Amino acid sequence: MLGQWLALGALVGVVCGVASAAFLWLLEEATRLREANGGLVYALPLAGWVLGAVYARWGGPVRGGNNLVLETVHTGDAQVPLRMAPMVLVGTVLTHLFGGSAGREGTAVQMGGSLADWVAHRFRAGADLRRELLAAGIAGGFGSVFGTPVAGAVFGLEVVVVGRLGYEALLPALVASVVGDVVTRGLGIQHTVYPVPGALPLSVTVIGKWLVFAVGVAAVAVVFVEGLHRLKAGMEKRVPWLPLRMAMGGTAVVMLWLWVGTDAYLGLGVPGIVRAFEDPGLPVSVFAWKLAFTVVTLGTGFLGGEVTPLFFIGASLGNVLARMLGLPVDLGAAVGMAALFAAAANTPLALSIMAVELVGAGVLPHVMIVSTVAYVLTGHRGIYPAQRIGRRKD
Amino acid sequence: MLGQWLALGALVGVVCGVASAAFLWLLEEATRLREANGGLVYALPLAGWVLGAVYARWGGPVRGGNNLVLETVHTGDAQVPLRMAPMVLVGTVLTHLFGGSAGREGTAVQMGGSLADWVAHRFRAGADLRRELLAAGIAGGFGSVFGTPVAGAVFGLEVVVVGRLGYEALLPALVASVVGDVVTRGLGIQHTVYPVPGALPLSVTVIGKWLVFAVGVAAVAVVFVEGLHRLKAGMEKRVPWLPLRMAMGGTAVVMLWLWVGTDAYLGLGVPGIVRAFEDPGLPVSVFAWKLAFTVVTLGTGFLGGEVTPLFFIGASLGNVLARMLGLPVDLGAAVGMAALFAAAANTPLALSIMAVELVGAGVLPHVMIVSTVAYVLTGHRGIYPAQRIGRRKD
Repeated sequence: MLGQWLALGALVGVVCGVASAAFLWLLEEATRLREANGGLVYALPLAGWVLGAVYARWGGPVRGGNNLVLETVHTGDAQVPLRMAPMVLVGTVLTHLFGGSAGREGTAVQMGGSLADWVAHRFRAGADLRRELLAAGIAGGFGSVFGTPVAGAVFGLEVVVVGRLGYEALLPALVASVVGDVVTRGLGIQHTVYPVPGALPLSVTVIGKWLVFAVGVAAVAVVFVEGLHRLKAGMEKRVPWLPLRMAMGGTAVVMLWLWVGTDAYLGLGVPGIVRAFEDPGLPVSVFAWKLAFTVVTLGTGFLGGEVTPLFFIGASLGNVLARMLGLPVDLGAAVGMAALFAAAANTPLALSIMAVELVGAGVLPHVMIVSTVAYVLTGHRGIYPAQRIGRRKD
Repeated sequence: MLGQWLALGALVGVVCGVASAAFLWLLEEATRLREANGGLVYALPLAGWVLGAVYARWGGPVRGGNNLVLETVHTGDAQVPLRMAPMVLVGTVLTHLFGGSAGREGTAVQMGGSLADWVAHRFRAGADLRRELLAAGIAGGFGSVFGTPVAGAVFGLEVVVVGRLGYEALLPALVASVVGDVVTRGLGIQHTVYPVPGALPLSVTVIGKWLVFAVGVAAVAVVFVEGLHRLKAGMEKRVPWLPLRMAMGGTAVVMLWLWVGTDAYLGLGVPGIVRAFEDPGLPVSVFAWKLAFTVVTLGTGFLGGEVTPLFFIGASLGNVLARMLGLPVDLGAAVGMAALFAAAANTPLALSIMAVELVGAGVLPHVMIVSTVAYVLTGHRGIYPAQRIGRRKD
């Protein structure tokens, strides 16, 4: 078993790492192109129409996205189609080329999941091993796309069931994530370097401030999750034809863009995250704008993920909350960034570790406190409806 | 529920933090006294006799130690006696005063468990809440005694069942651990500062070296766990009367001490841990000596825990393995230190996080790889027989 876990985990890691490197390179090129040609954003409705037509025609189960991968881990039903990998990759790159506000982990998880299931199929893995390889695919995709291998492994275990972390896939997930990260970096990818916040000793006052902070994070997480689900459900009911739905979504993003009058909320928004660490005068409205852009982009069917936009929203929110509460702005941004995704995805442990891998050990007690409290406060909702509830939070 | 978790978790944290501060202060005084008066070690057999007589007369269920606490979390049987806290505290301090080689987390867990069960009893907690408060007691004791609050919280969840981490007690455990840590530090306790190893980028070669390293760690973990259990079982069978057994154990430690001719393996051995980070000429035999001292001390009934001796053994082993494999000595010591306890206690996640809290984020991918592989390799054994197997490792 150990040999199989190491060998197949490493193989999953290699394919995930190569896929992530190609994806990140294309994403960077797309972002560069879009930044150089602002007019591309006007084509987002058209891009939505085309992507919608392609997904409507050839998507089938692929349209389930992350939830298809999670569902397959639970039920062991039909194979995750291998075509999911190229489809979500191209779809995400086009979403970003034309300025949609989306992230990367959805794409990484879906590429990783479909590639891992292909490996499982090729090596005639039994039901248990296949499930473990799927978790390894999630881990390998997540770890390699963000350059955070330990967080990737823990995410692959933690995201499957709310309130429980099973260790059955621990070794293959860690191997896939670590190997994937090494491969992606080996192919020349450089990950974003975030500012390292200064240390802040814990005290009763500081803990009290973080509790208030966590209430703010949880509230925004609920708004994001509910907004996304309601927009998605409402649009699917009223506009069942995907190409039209995505064209409408693209149009709405263009209108938001013209209204706000800045490119800051388009695409991944990495500069916006870095700014939240550093700008003591960041307007309160920033997180709300990014939230609106992202909910509209993802709620109408565009492709990508939630991590990077939620990092943007969480860091900007954290900046503002830190100033209100008298906490250091950079630490507030770092904590808000990780805790908002932790609350929205029900993954407090993975995101606390991710924060350590991104901004250092000094963030640790703080981010864990806020992530845990916000996780408990958001209740049984989350961005992945296919998550099962292993243990109720109340 | 949230209010209850916060309030009772904080209360458990306060009592754990006060207990840990008193314990650490007494331990420091005892260590200082023993270092100033080497002759005290000759009295270890007598101290064993007295401690044995006290435990045999008034111990009752308290003699189950950590396993009684874990068993109570599982079965919800009779209350953990409140007298466990003072008994294990005094027993551990005397063990250290006379030079026994033992650690601290056992004492912290037992004090935390008995104090938490007393809180649960006072507030008429139902079965579920009581179980959660017991986990919080473990977390609060562990986190405050080592100054590692996040590791304490994760340890409280991870140690209960092998192969699964349940989140039901996540919030109260984190609150107890964080509050306990703040209280202990607030009472003036300063924790050991370990050297921070330099960063080492991951590569395929480095991963391969860590796999070999992990085999060495797992082998020593198995020797420690099996040696401890067999010595304990064999002695209990052949010398059923505890005072005599402990007097014999004390005599054996004195003989080892006279044989090796140094005080380095007595007590906690914190200077030995720090030395392992720095000494490129550390003899190979060092880890084996500390292992022998510790197995004899704990296997014959002396009190304390396993963490600090296993840190000593693991860091010294890691130093040697790192030199053999061409890895940095300081990083090898840091990884060996955490991974050996992770493998022996089946807590790879808590110990990886503990390593981050003690020596910084640079240790992270490395320690997680070695801890996980060693954890899988040690199979279904561990220093806590009352751990249940939630998920088999094979």
